[in-house]
Amino acid sequence: MDQTEATRRGELLKLWAAPGTNVEIVTVQEGPASIESMYEEYLSIPPVAKIMYQLEQEGYDAAILGCAGDPGLDAFREITSNMLVVGPAASSFHAAAMLGHQFTLLTVADSMIGSSHELVAKSGLTDKLASVRAVNIPVLELAVNREATLEKLVRIGRDAIEKDRADVLVLGCMSMGFLNVAEEMQEALGIPVVNPAKIALKMTEALVSIELVHSKKAYALPPKLASGKVKSLNELLISRS
Amino acid sequence: MDQTEATRRGELLKLWAAPGTNVEIVTVQEGPASIESMYEEYLSIPPVAKIMYQLEQEGYDAAILGCAGDPGLDAFREITSNMLVVGPAASSFHAAAMLGHQFTLLTVADSMIGSSHELVAKSGLTDKLASVRAVNIPVLELAVNREATLEKLVRIGRDAIEKDRADVLVLGCMSMGFLNVAEEMQEALGIPVVNPAKIALKMTEALVSIELVHSKKAYALPPKLASGKVKSLNELLISRS
Amino acid sequence: MDQTEATRRGELLKLWAAPGTNVEIVTVQEGPASIESMYEEYLSIPPVAKIMYQLEQEGYDAAILGCAGDPGLDAFREITSNMLVVGPAASSFHAAAMLGHQFTLLTVADSMIGSSHELVAKSGLTDKLASVRAVNIPVLELAVNREATLEKLVRIGRDAIEKDRADVLVLGCMSMGFLNVAEEMQEALGIPVVNPAKIALKMTEALVSIELVHSKKAYALPPKLASGKVKSLNELLISRS
Amino acid sequence: MDQTEATRRGELLKLWAAPGTNVEIVTVQEGPASIESMYEEYLSIPPVAKIMYQLEQEGYDAAILGCAGDPGLDAFREITSNMLVVGPAASSFHAAAMLGHQFTLLTVADSMIGSSHELVAKSGLTDKLASVRAVNIPVLELAVNREATLEKLVRIGRDAIEKDRADVLVLGCMSMGFLNVAEEMQEALGIPVVNPAKIALKMTEALVSIELVHSKKAYALPPKLASGKVKSLNELLISRS
Amino acid sequence: MDQTEATRRGELLKLWAAPGTNVEIVTVQEGPASIESMYEEYLSIPPVAKIMYQLEQEGYDAAILGCAGDPGLDAFREITSNMLVVGPAASSFHAAAMLGHQFTLLTVADSMIGSSHELVAKSGLTDKLASVRAVNIPVLELAVNREATLEKLVRIGRDAIEKDRADVLVLGCMSMGFLNVAEEMQEALGIPVVNPAKIALKMTEALVSIELVHSKKAYALPPKLASGKVKSLNELLISRS
Amino acid sequence: MDQTEATRRGELLKLWAAPGTNVEIVTVQEGPASIESMYEEYLSIPPVAKIMYQLEQEGYDAAILGCAGDPGLDAFREITSNMLVVGPAASSFHAAAMLGHQFTLLTVADSMIGSSHELVAKSGLTDKLASVRAVNIPVLELAVNREATLEKLVRIGRDAIEKDRADVLVLGCMSMGFLNVAEEMQEALGIPVVNPAKIALKMTEALVSIELVHSKKAYALPPKLASGKVKSLNELLISRS
Repeated sequence: MDQTEATRRGELLKLWAAPGTNVEIVTVQEGPASIESMYEEYLSIPPVAKIMYQLEQEGYDAAILGCAGDPGLDAFREITSNMLVVGPAASSFHAAAMLGHQFTLLTVADSMIGSSHELVAKSGLTDKLASVRAVNIPVLELAVNREATLEKLVRIGRDAIEKDRADVLVLGCMSMGFLNVAEEMQEALGIPVVNPAKIALKMTEALVSIELVHSKKAYALPPKLASGKVKSLNELLISRS
Repeated sequence: MDQTEATRRGELLKLWAAPGTNVEIVTVQEGPASIESMYEEYLSIPPVAKIMYQLEQEGYDAAILGCAGDPGLDAFREITSNMLVVGPAASSFHAAAMLGHQFTLLTVADSMIGSSHELVAKSGLTDKLASVRAVNIPVLELAVNREATLEKLVRIGRDAIEKDRADVLVLGCMSMGFLNVAEEMQEALGIPVVNPAKIALKMTEALVSIELVHSKKAYALPPKLASGKVKSLNELLISRS
Repeated sequence: MDQTEATRRGELLKLWAAPGTNVEIVTVQEGPASIESMYEEYLSIPPVAKIMYQLEQEGYDAAILGCAGDPGLDAFREITSNMLVVGPAASSFHAAAMLGHQFTLLTVADSMIGSSHELVAKSGLTDKLASVRAVNIPVLELAVNREATLEKLVRIGRDAIEKDRADVLVLGCMSMGFLNVAEEMQEALGIPVVNPAKIALKMTEALVSIELVHSKKAYALPPKLASGKVKSLNELLISRS
Repeated sequence: MDQTEATRRGELLKLWAAPGTNVEIVTVQEGPASIESMYEEYLSIPPVAKIMYQLEQEGYDAAILGCAGDPGLDAFREITSNMLVVGPAASSFHAAAMLGHQFTLLTVADSMIGSSHELVAKSGLTDKLASVRAVNIPVLELAVNREATLEKLVRIGRDAIEKDRADVLVLGCMSMGFLNVAEEMQEALGIPVVNPAKIALKMTEALVSIELVHSKKAYALPPKLASGKVKSLNELLISRS
Repeated sequence: MDQTEATRRGELLKLWAAPGTNVEIVTVQEGPASIESMYEEYLSIPPVAKIMYQLEQEGYDAAILGCAGDPGLDAFREITSNMLVVGPAASSFHAAAMLGHQFTLLTVADSMIGSSHELVAKSGLTDKLASVRAVNIPVLELAVNREATLEKLVRIGRDAIEKDRADVLVLGCMSMGFLNVAEEMQEALGIPVVNPAKIALKMTEALVSIELVHSKKAYALPPKLASGKVKSLNELLISRS
Repeated sequence: MDQTEATRRGELLKLWAAPGTNVEIVTVQEGPASIESMYEEYLSIPPVAKIMYQLEQEGYDAAILGCAGDPGLDAFREITSNMLVVGPAASSFHAAAMLGHQFTLLTVADSMIGSSHELVAKSGLTDKLASVRAVNIPVLELAVNREATLEKLVRIGRDAIEKDRADVLVLGCMSMGFLNVAEEMQEALGIPVVNPAKIALKMTEALVSIELVHSKKAYALPPKLASGKVKSLNELLISRS
């Protein structure tokens, strides 16, 4: 993501944040231009992991992933202990499940439908999933024509309501989230629409304020680190000379 | 609940609330002394429903149920449209699911284990449930000896961790929540412990702040009200003269 | 329900009853005019509970709920020990599951589809559910034009067969049951149609004849009653002076 | 089964039958001595199928299988259209599910535990199954020492209650059913115990009395018979000359 | 199956077999002409069982069932200990699950759709099933017009892809398998098509080559054989003189 | 992994391979020393992906992952089209499911139990999983004392059989696989033990021999590659200058 867009997203988050919450947006030096495949999800993880590890050292309370596929969420939680790590996907799914009977996830492309089902299953919420429907606009083009994107989202959302009996919608992509269209969709469609960027921020504020951090029993420190066999994250990756 | 205890709870909620959140505690004129059975859950619903309906008229943003069995949650959502209604149980289960792989629910009595399973199923989170275990201290006596209760909760929590592989715990009763022991349990056990009173407040703040309300497609206004056949909630209950 | 209709229903039940079964129809003094929402379900429970409790004292063998949403079934079973309490919904779902691979539940209104899914899940039979479809005729008008209602039921039943692959149908409302149209639907559609009023009576006769009563381990007496802390059902409800 | 035992079982069924029900017990010329494996289940099917087919021709209202593994139930329903065919296993599981939260199935031998789980799954009731436990007394020896068998059943039933949280028990074998010990077990254990022989009879009476027959959409006539390509059941089996 | 067709199938299997695999096709003296119902499935089991039992005595490494409904698979495994018994259905379902997210099973007739769902459930793969669709060409006529059959299979496969989101197809019948059309379907449809005859052979070779045999803990010898009460398979079937 | 061990593993694979199969073992320049956490799984993916992509260009028929957590399997399938990619975990789980009723997965460390459940769920086989049990020997030390490791594996396997009713075992780690102990465990325990290294090779041979490749509908080429927006895999990763 270019710096302009990163700054824009940071400004939105600051706008959405509760009084007392300080938000910083952190970008990586290397990664995929956007995430539309599992391959790109995995590519994004190692550089982000390093930053997560470092942020905890710096004393941050929490970190939110920048992609609504939650790539690497479990790994980031393994390598942090006091800094809560939050995934926008999991946050969105649980919020949606709290608001209705069954939600539809609007994912970016047909190529992500299968893995989106797996993502919902990982959150334990398959029983609350009405369907996954793809928008099929390249992530990097979602913001090119905001009105056209909004119109398509509303159209697909209406299909979800009528054909799949969805009563809540989830935007399955951070670029959709930062397009800031959920409220307009909500107005057009009459059901709650969950913005992953907003809800992840709010869930993070909620959990941090009552000192809940992800379970270290669920996401244990990698054994080599736990046993002291290696001293730092970097040593977990070795190169053949 | 007597007024002293209600006041005490209200004070705690105010303490826990984010800046900008105004909390009021509302009590009913009639209801069960505590809730330890489905029968008592149902008894509590009609008086609370009237209050919910009225609170919406008065312009409240949200209302949180006072019992961690979420009795009547769906009904209260049917009769409100703009005021979000939140259940402590659903809030707790979803928070727990966000923090680990599988949680154990600590319910009040053996008599509630079956219905607790149904409650988790209703939230869609059966796949994330390690077990339900009962504390078997009468609700009204939980606070009589805080230390003894805490000790028992820790002991049963340890069983949940060791025998059921729980990595998060949920306190399944508001009186446990207002006993304010989650942090002490957390320290003793090393895994997150979710306090239903706190998390319900935080989830409510989170959802309200981004204008998410329960889906009216999921929780439709009762048809007689929707069609105008009856004009108010009270007319839905008729007596034979 | 007015007395004429109550009497008519009682007559039908007597007609359907096996030799040796004595049926009495009991009406409450206060309750919703019909049940088309969860709110109305909950409204119906407290007055019925009192009657259930009293009927057991009077020595009845069994009691059948009057609503095919089974409102309060678990509570009524908690407060009775020797008198079997039977729900028309559960009876219908289990009968349907015994007769085919998957059934469609015909519920009264779109507003009940979500809670109907939860009701089937509570009976453990989600795997046997083809779909829930709504008739969308107000309960109180189902009998206004019997032919029109029957025609609509047949049309929706045909959709269930063709689109959802249902091979059994369940009428999801006692007013549909007492309309006595299952046999005509069966003839028109060629698959079994379960009438909740009839099957609940027959399941009750079946269980009573071999002395099976609901499990008190599953539906325990409310702890305050079990421990003797309160002496009667009425004391479970307290008013603030 | 020898003729004496068949007669004894017939007498019990007559005793249990409702006024107006005529019970006849029919035995096959060839089959396994008892059923303790899937192999023996399959062996039992072809001879029973012929009898089922013939019984329908003779105008019987219903037929109940003689084995609580329900071997061939789907096949017998395929080849009958007006005569209801009932399985003791399915009847027992559905009755148990109607009476509590979760039941334990007491099967005859360890060798049947895997297939018992499949049998419960076939009825759609896996969510209601607490466990399957084996009695490990050969079927043909169950009646040799009634007291010892009863004692073992009670002991295993107690394990099911305490270790698996069962709140209903199902006897998973017709020879256990005709041992007529359910009531004694019930008294000893305090939870309902379902006798497959009794409940199958009662379910049959219930369904027949309201003219419900298994769905022919679910259990279609074999296509060769339906299309008229073969004229009778016998022609479905061909021998190479 | 006539001898010509049996020979033809044997030739195909030899062609498909790996170097070092010796395939023999064995036919029964008595059985259904083809299998299009559960009744015919059960009819086929006893004669095949005898052969399976004998083949093990003769020292074969493995046996593959001849029907893609896997009739009697569990029973054949009970009566063999060292000779692996493989079902074409289970082999196909697991292969399909390894190749994609969700598969559609193409079964022979509408009458088999219900039992096909049960078959997939038995293999544990319900979560991977997109749908079951029926070809509705009688098994014995599948090969009459190969082109017409292929065309229909492609058409129904396309429906499965477009309407049910299938990404793998399974041919649910050995006669479809030996029609040898999977590759042509694959070419036409662009997704993997699993031929039960081929994959069963390959799975068998795979398992035999690393000495894996079905678990005798899962498929125990029938107790009467295990205990020595009967000496041979034949004695498990008794006739009344 | 050092070159000696890589060579040793390659030799074993050649030994296990069918006539006509050419096996080559390929190592990466950079990666974790062993995989005992999700973090290490993700670290291993990008370097392996590059090799997978290149191997397809070079015309290989198939590639097998080197880790029994199947890290990146979906991604590798996205970036290959004609070269089958096989995961040892998925291969093992499906083989185990074909051989018994329920299997136990022996994973390396307690830290992997949660993610192992997710891995089984991803393969669709949760219903066939008896349990996951951890060996808790560091991966790099598994081979230090082969006898001690074998003894521990047998002990834990026995627990799985007795306490979890497992009837098949799966070794959940390639280092366990190349320790080549499955046959000894099998002898000691009497149930099948699946070696992921062996079964992955055999499943690959099976699928390749009948020209089955993973579904490109399930694992689509990343959209940027599919649309031609980027020309090669490398361009999917971008660096900020």
